[in-house]
Amino acid sequence: MSPGRPVIPGADKVRRTLTDQGGESPSPVRGSEAEASSSGREVAAYGATSAQSGLVPLTIRRRALKPDDVEIDIDFCGLCHSDVHATRGEWGERPWPLVPGHEIVGRVRRVGDDVRSFSVGERVGVGCMVDSCGECENCLDGVEQFCDRGNVLTYGSVDPRNGGEITQGGYAQRIVVTEKFVLHVPEALDPAAAAPLLCAGITTYSPLRYFGVEPGERVGVVGLGGLGHMAVKLAKAMGAEVTVFTRSARKADAARELGADGVVVTSEAGALEGAQRTLDLVIDTVAAPHDVNPYLQTLRLDGALFQLSLPSGTMAPVDPGLLIRRRLSYGGSLIGGIAETQEMLDFCAEHGVTAEVELVSADELNTAYDRMVEGDVKYRFVLDATTLASTGTGSAQAEEGEE
Amino acid sequence: MSPGRPVIPGADKVRRTLTDQGGESPSPVRGSEAEASSSGREVAAYGATSAQSGLVPLTIRRRALKPDDVEIDIDFCGLCHSDVHATRGEWGERPWPLVPGHEIVGRVRRVGDDVRSFSVGERVGVGCMVDSCGECENCLDGVEQFCDRGNVLTYGSVDPRNGGEITQGGYAQRIVVTEKFVLHVPEALDPAAAAPLLCAGITTYSPLRYFGVEPGERVGVVGLGGLGHMAVKLAKAMGAEVTVFTRSARKADAARELGADGVVVTSEAGALEGAQRTLDLVIDTVAAPHDVNPYLQTLRLDGALFQLSLPSGTMAPVDPGLLIRRRLSYGGSLIGGIAETQEMLDFCAEHGVTAEVELVSADELNTAYDRMVEGDVKYRFVLDATTLASTGTGSAQAEEGEE
Repeated sequence: MSPGRPVIPGADKVRRTLTDQGGESPSPVRGSEAEASSSGREVAAYGATSAQSGLVPLTIRRRALKPDDVEIDIDFCGLCHSDVHATRGEWGERPWPLVPGHEIVGRVRRVGDDVRSFSVGERVGVGCMVDSCGECENCLDGVEQFCDRGNVLTYGSVDPRNGGEITQGGYAQRIVVTEKFVLHVPEALDPAAAAPLLCAGITTYSPLRYFGVEPGERVGVVGLGGLGHMAVKLAKAMGAEVTVFTRSARKADAARELGADGVVVTSEAGALEGAQRTLDLVIDTVAAPHDVNPYLQTLRLDGALFQLSLPSGTMAPVDPGLLIRRRLSYGGSLIGGIAETQEMLDFCAEHGVTAEVELVSADELNTAYDRMVEGDVKYRFVLDATTLASTGTGSAQAEEGEE
Repeated sequence: MSPGRPVIPGADKVRRTLTDQGGESPSPVRGSEAEASSSGREVAAYGATSAQSGLVPLTIRRRALKPDDVEIDIDFCGLCHSDVHATRGEWGERPWPLVPGHEIVGRVRRVGDDVRSFSVGERVGVGCMVDSCGECENCLDGVEQFCDRGNVLTYGSVDPRNGGEITQGGYAQRIVVTEKFVLHVPEALDPAAAAPLLCAGITTYSPLRYFGVEPGERVGVVGLGGLGHMAVKLAKAMGAEVTVFTRSARKADAARELGADGVVVTSEAGALEGAQRTLDLVIDTVAAPHDVNPYLQTLRLDGALFQLSLPSGTMAPVDPGLLIRRRLSYGGSLIGGIAETQEMLDFCAEHGVTAEVELVSADELNTAYDRMVEGDVKYRFVLDATTLASTGTGSAQAEEGEE
C-alpha cells in the first residue's frame, strides 16, 4: 500500500496546469507498473441480473489502478430512487448485471502514480458521474453533467476510457474512479449521512445556487422525499424562508422538524390559494407527472420553478399567461458539476447539513426498495457497505489480503 | 397655448423627490385653474361600438388637463394585433365604444402646471400603459407593467385616478396622459416608423435585455410579424447573430433583408434538426397555440425561450427532460417598464432602428385589420392620424381653434 500524502487543496488544478505546460513529469513514487497493468480485482457487490431478479449478491471486477485513478473502500452508499428505476428496467433495458449506487462515501485505499489531490485513508465520495470528455465547452466550464459527448455515469454507462466496459456503482466493497471525479468529503460530516449529498444534495444545491438564493428570499419545495428534504435543509442553510408543499398532512410536522417555516398540504381544498405570489423560487422534486401551474402561481415577479425529476409520463401543459404576466421561468436542473459538488460538500460541513438516513444492510436492499416505492422512508436509505463482505464471493474475500 | 420649456433629463425624478419632501410648491405658470377643471375636449377618433361594428368614426372626450398631464397631438398610431382581438371581442366583451391603439407618437400640445420633463412641441410617445398605482413594489422598481394592483392600459381599462372612466387609445387626434407615462421620442427617429416601438419594440427589447444578450450570442426569433421583425432588428443592433424561424418559405428573403443571419423554414421536413443546440435565446412571437419543444431543442446549455404572445388555446406540454438536460428555461415577458421603454427608444435612435411600416388612413383601418388577420403586412400598419380630422365630428373640428 502506498504511503499517505498530505492533501493540498487545489493541487489537482496546479498539477494539470503544470502538465499542460510540460513542466512536470509523472511521479514515480507509488504503484508499480505491474499493479497498474493487472486485470483488476474482484469485489463483492449487490446488483440486478435482470429487470425481474431484484438485487442479489454478485462479484464484480474493478479495473486495475491507472496513474490518475483512486481506489476507494466504500463505507456507505445512498439508495436513490433512480436505482430502483434502473434495476427494475423501468427506464428501458439495461446491460446486466447492473450494480446501482451513486451516493458513495468511503476512504481512499490506493492512489495511482499521478494522483496529487488525494491521499490514502482520506474520506472521499463519488456521485453520479465517474468521467466525461473533459474537452467540450461544458466540461471546460466545469459543468460535466452537461458534457456534450455524454458523460460516464457511475453505473450502467459505457466507459470509453476503460475499454468500453459498463460502469458498476456503489453497492460494492470498492470502486476505482479517475481522480477528477472523486470528491473530498470533510471529516466533519457523518459519512453515512453525507452519502446522499452526492446525488440528492447536489441536485437540490445546484438550482438553489443557480437561481442565486439570498438570505430572506422565499423558497418553496414541492415534495418531501430524498430530494425534497435536502432542498429544505440547504435552502434554510442559505438563509431562505422555506415553504414545503406536500400532499400528505402527516408530513407537515416532519417538514417543520427539518426547518420548514411553512407547510402547505396540497390535498386540502384551496390550500394553494393563500400561497399565491409569495415565493421567489420553487424547487419541484416530484417525479410523477403533475401540474406545475398551481406552483407557478405561488411565484412572485421574476420567480422560477426548477423541476428536478423526469416524470415517466406527460406533464400538464404550462399556462404561458402565467409566465408572461409575472416574467416567470419554468426550468430544469441536473445534478451539478464536480467543482460545484465539492463546494456543496464544503458548504454542508460549514453549516452542519447532512441527510436524514436509515441504514440498511445488503440483505435488506430489496425490502428497502419496496419501501421507497411506497414512500416509506425518512428520508434516504443508506447501504452499510461493510455488510457486503459477508455476502461476497470467495475470490473477493481472498483478494483482501493481497496488499 | 403654453410656452415651450427646456427639457431637463431626469427633472421629473428630481421634482418627485422634492415634492415628497414638501420642498416644492406646484408651479403657477401654465394652464389656468379654469382650464384644468373643465370637462375636457372632444376629439375625432376611430373605434368599435360593438364586437361586430368594425371600426367607425367616433367622437370621444379627452379629460381636462390635470397639473401632471401632458396633452398630445397624435401624429401616428401603430396597429397592433391585440387591437384586432379587442375590437372584435375575441378577448371577451369590452366596454363599448372602444378606441384602440397603444403605439402612439405625436407632439406635446399642452402641459399641466406641474409637468417638468416635457415641453410643448416636443416629439413624444405613449405605449401600452397610461398609469399604474405607483406605490407597489413593482411600480417602485420601475416595472409598472407588473403593477400589483393592475396598471391602467391605454385603452379599454378603468382609470381610477380619473373618475373610473374607461381609457380610449391612440386611433384619435389627441390623448391626455399623465407625465410619468409619456416617453421622449428622439427626433432622429422617423415618427411613423417609431410608433410600433411603443409596443412591438419594447415587447421584444425587454426580454433581450432581461436575458442579457451580448454581442456574438445567438438569438432565434420564431415568427416574422410585427413583433418578430422588431426582435430581429433589435437583436442585430445588440450584436447578436440572429436566426429566424418561419413557416413560410417566401419570408426567408425578407428575413435576410431585415438582417437575419440564418433562416429556418419550419414547414420543411427536418428543417429544425440542423438548428439543434445552436442558440442562446429564443424569442417566440407566435400567438397561435403551438409546440415550443422543437424550439427548446435549438437551445444550448442555459438557454432560454421567452414567449411573448398569449395564445388563445392550449399549448402543447413542455418536455421537462429538455429543460433538465440543458438547464433551459421557458419563460414569458410582458412589454416593459416606462424607464426601460425610454431606454429602448434611445437605443433605437442610437442604432437607427425603427419598424417597417405601411401607412394607412382612417378609412383604411378595417381593410388593414383584415390584412393583419391574413398576415398580409410587412410588418406593421401605422395609422396616419391626420386623416382622422376629415372624418371627425363637427364639435371636434370646432374645438381645434379654442386655444
